[in-house]
Amino acid sequence: MADNNRKMVGSITSMDEDFAKWYTDIVKKAELIEYTSVKGCMVIRPYGYAIWENIQRILDGMFKETGHENVCMPMFIPESLLQKEKDHVKGFAPEVAWVTHGGSEKLEDRLCVRPTSEVLFCEHYANIIQSHRDLPKLYNQWVSVVRWEKTTRPFLRSREFLWQEGHTVHATAQEAIEETERMLDIYAEFCEKYLAMPVIKGRKTDSDKFAGAEATYAIEALMHDGKALQAGTSHYFGDGFAKAFGIQYTSKENKLVYPHQTSWGVTTRLIGAVIMTHGDDNGLVLPPDIAPVQAVIIPVMQHKEGVLEKCAGLKNMLAEDFRVKLDDSDNSPGWKFAEYEMKGVPVRIEMGPKDIEAGQCVVVTRHNREKTTVKLADIKAAVAGKLEEVRSGIYEKALKNRENRTYSCMNTDEIIKTLEENGDGFVKAMWCGDEACEDIVKEKTGAGSRCMPSEQEKISDVCVCCGKPAKALVYWGKAY
Amino acid sequence: MADNNRKMVGSITSMDEDFAKWYTDIVKKAELIEYTSVKGCMVIRPYGYAIWENIQRILDGMFKETGHENVCMPMFIPESLLQKEKDHVKGFAPEVAWVTHGGSEKLEDRLCVRPTSEVLFCEHYANIIQSHRDLPKLYNQWVSVVRWEKTTRPFLRSREFLWQEGHTVHATAQEAIEETERMLDIYAEFCEKYLAMPVIKGRKTDSDKFAGAEATYAIEALMHDGKALQAGTSHYFGDGFAKAFGIQYTSKENKLVYPHQTSWGVTTRLIGAVIMTHGDDNGLVLPPDIAPVQAVIIPVMQHKEGVLEKCAGLKNMLAEDFRVKLDDSDNSPGWKFAEYEMKGVPVRIEMGPKDIEAGQCVVVTRHNREKTTVKLADIKAAVAGKLEEVRSGIYEKALKNRENRTYSCMNTDEIIKTLEENGDGFVKAMWCGDEACEDIVKEKTGAGSRCMPSEQEKISDVCVCCGKPAKALVYWGKAY
Repeated sequence: MADNNRKMVGSITSMDEDFAKWYTDIVKKAELIEYTSVKGCMVIRPYGYAIWENIQRILDGMFKETGHENVCMPMFIPESLLQKEKDHVKGFAPEVAWVTHGGSEKLEDRLCVRPTSEVLFCEHYANIIQSHRDLPKLYNQWVSVVRWEKTTRPFLRSREFLWQEGHTVHATAQEAIEETERMLDIYAEFCEKYLAMPVIKGRKTDSDKFAGAEATYAIEALMHDGKALQAGTSHYFGDGFAKAFGIQYTSKENKLVYPHQTSWGVTTRLIGAVIMTHGDDNGLVLPPDIAPVQAVIIPVMQHKEGVLEKCAGLKNMLAEDFRVKLDDSDNSPGWKFAEYEMKGVPVRIEMGPKDIEAGQCVVVTRHNREKTTVKLADIKAAVAGKLEEVRSGIYEKALKNRENRTYSCMNTDEIIKTLEENGDGFVKAMWCGDEACEDIVKEKTGAGSRCMPSEQEKISDVCVCCGKPAKALVYWGKAY
Repeated sequence: MADNNRKMVGSITSMDEDFAKWYTDIVKKAELIEYTSVKGCMVIRPYGYAIWENIQRILDGMFKETGHENVCMPMFIPESLLQKEKDHVKGFAPEVAWVTHGGSEKLEDRLCVRPTSEVLFCEHYANIIQSHRDLPKLYNQWVSVVRWEKTTRPFLRSREFLWQEGHTVHATAQEAIEETERMLDIYAEFCEKYLAMPVIKGRKTDSDKFAGAEATYAIEALMHDGKALQAGTSHYFGDGFAKAFGIQYTSKENKLVYPHQTSWGVTTRLIGAVIMTHGDDNGLVLPPDIAPVQAVIIPVMQHKEGVLEKCAGLKNMLAEDFRVKLDDSDNSPGWKFAEYEMKGVPVRIEMGPKDIEAGQCVVVTRHNREKTTVKLADIKAAVAGKLEEVRSGIYEKALKNRENRTYSCMNTDEIIKTLEENGDGFVKAMWCGDEACEDIVKEKTGAGSRCMPSEQEKISDVCVCCGKPAKALVYWGKAY
C-alpha cells in the first residue's frame, strides 16, 4: 500500500528541481493528454477534456449573457482570400498547414487550415451586412485552429489547439472599442473567479500587436516559476478589415460607411496556465469551478460491512449539488489518496467504520491537506465551504507569488540584476514608447513579454532604456 | 403589411413544384446557412448553429448517461497511419484532403484531414490499454470531418461537416455487439422523441458496410418527398482494427488477447432530415426540443400604451420554462408572422390591447396554424401543452407519410411500376442475400438505399430478383 503510494507520487519530478519536466510529468500522470504520431498534436484525454468542457460551459454562458451568438465557419481558407488583408497574411502565412490536394485532384487555389478566422468572418459579414439595422453582429465560434509551430508543448504551444474566437462588427469605433474592453474584462473576470488565477489587464506594444489589429489587449498571468503567460487577447481592428473586404452598411443618415470590428480569443492554453499557477509536487490542483470531480469519496476499510453502502449513500446525496465520485475500486486508500491528489481533486472525503459509527467523515482540502472532521448531517454545507476555501486559498497563494515576484527597476542593468538575483518575475519599468528601446530591453534582459497595464503608475519620469521622458509603465517578463 | 408578408413567403419555391429548390430556399431564408468561397463548405449561421447546439446537448447527455466520455483527437492523420487497416484506407483515401506543406516546409509523410478517426483512436488505444481493468473504453468526440465530395448540398452532403464519433473498446465480441445495438437504440430514441422523426432500425448489406466494419447498423428515415435518408450509423468492428493496430490486453486468465471495437456517429445531416421531414410551403417546422426559439411573442398594435410592457412581462414569465423571444421590432405583425413561420418556431403568441383587456392572448401552433385563445393565468401550462401538440402532431404526420409511401413488391418489375405510379417511397422486398441480385435491383430500379430492418417480416418465400429462397426482408428506396 505504502509502496504503491510512494511509487506514484515519486514518479513526478519536483517543481523546484525542473519545472519544465514537472509540467510534462503532470500532464501525463494526471491523464490530461497523450502524445500521438502526429508531431505537435495531442490527444486530450477524458479528464483533460472535461476540464475544457467546464471552461467552455462557463465562458459560453458569459458570452451569451452579453448578447453573443455561436456560429461555425469552414476550417479551410483559400490562399487568395487569406491574402486580402496584407498585415494579416504576412503574420500568418509562414505558419499555416496547406491543403494542396482533394482526393486525387490537385487544387488550383491552395487551402490553408485556419490559423484564425478573421478573413472567413469578413467574407461572411460582407454578404450579410447591408444596413445599420444589421449591426452589431456579435459572433463567436468554438473550434480548433492550426499553427505550424517548430517547438511544441502540451496545452502551451501545439500545432493544433482548441479555442473560441469572437468576431464582432459595430457601427462606430467607439462601440467596437467598448466591445474590445468588455471582452477583456470578461476574460479577466473568468480567470480570477473561476480559475482562481490573478491576471493583469493591459495593452500590447505596437510591435507585439495581432496581425491586422489597431490595438491588442491581453490578460497576463504569472506562473509559479515566475514566467509570464498571456492568457487571453482582445483586438480592436478599426475599419481596416472592413475596407479590405468591402464590408459596408447604410447608416441612419443613408450614407454608405465602413463598420468597425473586433476579435478576441482564449485557448486550451488556459489549462496549461491552471497547471502552472496552482500545481504542486503532489500533482495538479484544480480550481473547484472547472474540476471534473469536485469531491472524491474514499472508503476506508471498505471490506467491512456497511462501509460501501454508506459511502454510496453519501455520494448520491452530494451528487445533487456537486460533481462527486466514489472510488470503490480494489486499490488501497493510500494509492487512491495519491491518485486524486495527482488529479487535483479539490476535496477528498474519507469514511470508515469508526467514522460511520460516530456519524461523521473526514474532509481534506487538496491545496493545504488540512483535515476536518464533519458531521454527516452537515456535509453538504461543509463541502460547499471547503470548495470555496480551496478557491480562495489557491487564489491568494497565486496572488502572493505574483506580488513577491514583481519588481520595479529604473534602468536596464537593474532589470538584469534583479532577474538574476531573484529569478524570473514581472519587472515594472517606464518606457518612452520607442520601438528601438523596446528591442534593446528585450535583447539585453531576455524578457520577451511586455504589457502596458490598464492601471498605469508612474514609478519614474524617464525611460528605463534611453532616459528620455517616459510615456507608459510596462510589465516585462519572460514569456511562455 | 400584406405585401411584405406575401413577398417573404412568395420567395420560397413550393415543395410540390421543386422539392430540391424548396430545400435550398429554406436553408437560406430561414438563415440556417450561407455559402462561402470555399467550395462545398458553408457557414452555419446562428439560427442553424443553435439547432445543432440543442441536438448536441441532448445527445451528449444521453451518451454520458450511458457511461461515455468525451475526448479530442488531432484533426490530422499521417498517411502511413491511415494505411494500417487495408479496407479502411481503400474506403477513405480517395476522398480525403491532403496537407502536404507546413509553413514553407514540405512534409515527408503527408497528413490527411480526418474523414473519420478510427485510426487515431486505435493508435491511442494501443497506448493506453494493457489490462482487462482498462476495459471497456467508451469514448466520443464532437468535431468536424472532411470528405472531398464532388456534389454537395447544405447539411446533406458537404465537404466539411460537424458530427460526433463514438469509438469504444470491449473485452468481448458480445459486449461490443451490445454496444453497437445500444447506440443504434439511442439514436432511434433521439430521432423519434426529440426530432419527432420516425426511423427504421436495421442493418446494411455487406456491400454497403463501413470500410473496415464487420457489420453496419443504421437508422433510416423517409423524407417528405419519399426519398430515404440514413440518419445515423453504428458499426461493429470485431477485432480487425485491434489486430491491425496491435491493441491487446491481458485477460483475467492472464492471456494476451485482442479486444473488440465499435464506432457510431450522427452528423449535421440530422438538420437536413428535420427540414425535409417536417417543413412545408411556409418554411421550416421545428421540433420543440431542438427549436432555438420555442415560442415567439408578437405584440399587436404595439404602439398602444401598455402593450409592449405587458408582452415583456409575459416574456419574462415564459422564459422561466421555455426558450422564448419577444419581437418588438418595427416590422408589421404580418411580416413577423411570416418570418417566424419561415423559421419554424413551434408556437406563436399574439397579444394586443383587446387581449390584454380580456386577460388573454392568442396561441398559434406552427404545423397546423390552429389558433387558441388562452387566459394569461393559464399560459405556462398552455404553452407546454401546445409544444407537445406540435411534437406529436408532426411525428404523426411524418409517420403517416411513411406508411402511405411504403409498398410491398414481389418482383423487380413491380418495384419499378410501383415507384413510377406512386412516386418515391420505401419498397419492402425479399432478398436471397446474394450481392449479384442486390446489384441488379439497384441498377434496374434506381433504389440505392437498402436496409434490412431489425423487425423482420416474411412477405414472400423467394428473392424479388432471382426467385431463389429468400433470407431477409429489405427496405429499398432512393437515397439522400
